[in-house]
Amino acid sequence: MTIRVLVWNEGVHESTQPDIAAIYPAGIHGAIAEGLTEVLGDDVAVRTATLADPEHGLSEDTLAQTDVLLWWGHIAHDQVDDEVVARVQRHVLSGMGLLVLHSGHFSKIFTRLLGTTCSLNWRNEGERELVWTVAPTHPIAEGVEHPIVIEHQEMYGELFDIPTPDDLVFISSFTGGEVFRSGVTFTRGHGRIFYFSPGDQEYPVYFHPQIRRVLANGVRWANPAARPAVDRSIPAVANPDREWYLSR
Amino acid sequence: MTIRVLVWNEGVHESTQPDIAAIYPAGIHGAIAEGLTEVLGDDVAVRTATLADPEHGLSEDTLAQTDVLLWWGHIAHDQVDDEVVARVQRHVLSGMGLLVLHSGHFSKIFTRLLGTTCSLNWRNEGERELVWTVAPTHPIAEGVEHPIVIEHQEMYGELFDIPTPDDLVFISSFTGGEVFRSGVTFTRGHGRIFYFSPGDQEYPVYFHPQIRRVLANGVRWANPAARPAVDRSIPAVANPDREWYLSR
Amino acid sequence: MTIRVLVWNEGVHESTQPDIAAIYPAGIHGAIAEGLTEVLGDDVAVRTATLADPEHGLSEDTLAQTDVLLWWGHIAHDQVDDEVVARVQRHVLSGMGLLVLHSGHFSKIFTRLLGTTCSLNWRNEGERELVWTVAPTHPIAEGVEHPIVIEHQEMYGELFDIPTPDDLVFISSFTGGEVFRSGVTFTRGHGRIFYFSPGDQEYPVYFHPQIRRVLANGVRWANPAARPAVDRSIPAVANPDREWYLSR
Amino acid sequence: MTIRVLVWNEGVHESTQPDIAAIYPAGIHGAIAEGLTEVLGDDVAVRTATLADPEHGLSEDTLAQTDVLLWWGHIAHDQVDDEVVARVQRHVLSGMGLLVLHSGHFSKIFTRLLGTTCSLNWRNEGERELVWTVAPTHPIAEGVEHPIVIEHQEMYGELFDIPTPDDLVFISSFTGGEVFRSGVTFTRGHGRIFYFSPGDQEYPVYFHPQIRRVLANGVRWANPAARPAVDRSIPAVANPDREWYLSR
Repeated sequence: MTIRVLVWNEGVHESTQPDIAAIYPAGIHGAIAEGLTEVLGDDVAVRTATLADPEHGLSEDTLAQTDVLLWWGHIAHDQVDDEVVARVQRHVLSGMGLLVLHSGHFSKIFTRLLGTTCSLNWRNEGERELVWTVAPTHPIAEGVEHPIVIEHQEMYGELFDIPTPDDLVFISSFTGGEVFRSGVTFTRGHGRIFYFSPGDQEYPVYFHPQIRRVLANGVRWANPAARPAVDRSIPAVANPDREWYLSR
Repeated sequence: MTIRVLVWNEGVHESTQPDIAAIYPAGIHGAIAEGLTEVLGDDVAVRTATLADPEHGLSEDTLAQTDVLLWWGHIAHDQVDDEVVARVQRHVLSGMGLLVLHSGHFSKIFTRLLGTTCSLNWRNEGERELVWTVAPTHPIAEGVEHPIVIEHQEMYGELFDIPTPDDLVFISSFTGGEVFRSGVTFTRGHGRIFYFSPGDQEYPVYFHPQIRRVLANGVRWANPAARPAVDRSIPAVANPDREWYLSR
Repeated sequence: MTIRVLVWNEGVHESTQPDIAAIYPAGIHGAIAEGLTEVLGDDVAVRTATLADPEHGLSEDTLAQTDVLLWWGHIAHDQVDDEVVARVQRHVLSGMGLLVLHSGHFSKIFTRLLGTTCSLNWRNEGERELVWTVAPTHPIAEGVEHPIVIEHQEMYGELFDIPTPDDLVFISSFTGGEVFRSGVTFTRGHGRIFYFSPGDQEYPVYFHPQIRRVLANGVRWANPAARPAVDRSIPAVANPDREWYLSR
Repeated sequence: MTIRVLVWNEGVHESTQPDIAAIYPAGIHGAIAEGLTEVLGDDVAVRTATLADPEHGLSEDTLAQTDVLLWWGHIAHDQVDDEVVARVQRHVLSGMGLLVLHSGHFSKIFTRLLGTTCSLNWRNEGERELVWTVAPTHPIAEGVEHPIVIEHQEMYGELFDIPTPDDLVFISSFTGGEVFRSGVTFTRGHGRIFYFSPGDQEYPVYFHPQIRRVLANGVRWANPAARPAVDRSIPAVANPDREWYLSR
């Protein structure tokens, strides 16, 4: 069954900075969407949305028809409406997959789902990033080179203030010697979350074939249709049908 | 060094329902505070605060002088001010310990730190609860009977919608046959969190010697002074002192 | 692609105790194999092997053609040849799935893979066991009732001396009030391991439709073909192809 | 109470290779023992033992008087007697702490406790190793620089074939760009295990003040006296005292 994907991007850099627009002519969301279709073909139906859209393009109806949401943001986290964030959180807890990318570590949706500051160390000197797989049998690592070599990237380094992840899939190193838990997974409610740090507005990382492969793997992994169909209404009140246990 | 403890209770049941006040004449917070002092003696200095206090008794100054906060709430979660919740969260992420008790599973502070609904199954029939230790070398299990027997309790049952805990310390069963992960720990930022489900306004659970022992153990375990003194300002910007790695 | 399953049973009870043979006329392995075929149909090709077979039916050639191995043993753990155990361990580390059942907790293969005593508390009084799902989106919980009711079973209770599992899928309670982590998963090397406690020679548990469902789910989950094809030779020596990183 | 520490070293390099003996004149065990005493002073009583000693210096009596054992081995893993390994494993499961160092990753005791190959990638070119803390509130990270800088070291790189650790405390990077989970903890039975990779016979790593600090922290953390006194006989048979639960 086709995976319904929505790529969300704040879309501010591309519309205000010509040098960024030159790197991502179709927007960061456009490059990501293109990459997913390239790798997954007919297995996926990809739409995009941005901050400027009505309700940021994240209406109840749109989310109800989304299996996996990808999130890219950087300088406009504050402009995302709290009500929309609560709506996205509810959908994740109900089973929608979520991929949070790069500077999305500081997004409202990510910090709300994890509960921590999600802060990290950084430096932008165009260093080489090597992305090493530490969980080779994890579906997200399928067919991924060990390491992925990204010639020029912003450095993200520890300490990354996140809860202990369910799975640590990738660890990156940088020219400067820093390390970073660059691919980590979390489960929240019925939803799967994958954070992946490579990707920046100043570097063409989302055109990198290996990065596209990882994102495609992440979409497959986070797709709720690939897991048991659970009753999305988690029991929060006593179930009369179970009372018989008491009376046995 | 004395552990500075603050026991917070919404304090609504005791002030509006005479039958509850009869069970907890000094309030639920009073019973908990008494128990901590009983077990820990001079190792602890215990204060209390309630919803009705100015700023709910959780001012910046008070929190700055608190090592471990205990939280009991039930029917007034909505009345807790969002600003105060954000303040408590900030202190937990900076290292303050937090014990969340029983119906506090639905408190704003707990759901904010965990990111999930924290819902569960329940039934109030005064059933026997058995609390089994599954992590016998965990400091919170020190000197605790296996199992703890609570003659009459509200049933809390799975599914408990929480992230995978760092440590699963206790699992409870009830007369009706239900099970519950009744003692679980989480780390968020520099702070340690312990959720413990036994305890209800309708039963004198907080006078139970074994329950008092567990809470005292939890306070010791969550005390930040017992752990490395970390720089509470998690690095969120590039550190110029580290630039030399790049130039080496 | 068909999953190649091998059900291993020591097969001692059935051949020496008529009362057990009456419960499991085709052997415990026969009942398990029948159940897997019943649920999975053509998706699975099931063979069986027992202690009495040459090399216990676990030759290098047989294991090389096995995707998932199920293991049931009880009173003859000591009679399993150490060389065969080492061989099975090697195959698990290389990716073969392993389901360890009930009293198999004390088997050589399970204790070797986990490193602990794997001891537990027990009592055989034919009590009712309730198996509760605590990870509803886990593939092993797909389509499973909450709880599974087993009318008569041997009690297995905590403390279960195992390392912290990767996933805690099921927790059981018993008439006597004990609890047990009855469904737990581990990853060792490239192989997935699922331990599931329900099942005993004195009770017809392996004919229970829900238990059969869980075992079938476990086989699907542990099947290495469902995960990335990894190079089974984990790198243990320097890779000359990587030397260029040093010289860059 | 004084922590009784035993530093075990196979001691082969120092006695057969003059260049190694020049680096570690008192043996690797001597340097480690000196470092522990330097940092911990009277809090610790340190003895040493080597492969050449009767029973490798690991008699039942010696282990019974050991709180924490440190293990260094490299080229003589095969010469360690299986019976002694089983004895050490039993003591770890009963609560004795264990620190496994550097090339000890391939030791019999480590692979037996973890169940995996414990293999890794390596290259010996005297590269700079940076050891980054990713769990700043972990007791083992107390007072440790971020990062520790080791000017010359053997490279250990991923994939490190271990089970998911309880705690990931340190991640290292190397001049060549490789990364490694260099500080990881495990619990097995009642015992705590800490693996720490820095340390090699060809480099004076065990004289590095920061490495000495980490090992001292590890000893404190693994000391069973710092945790609840558990009944070391894990229940493996039915306890008649619990039968009353059934009859209630």
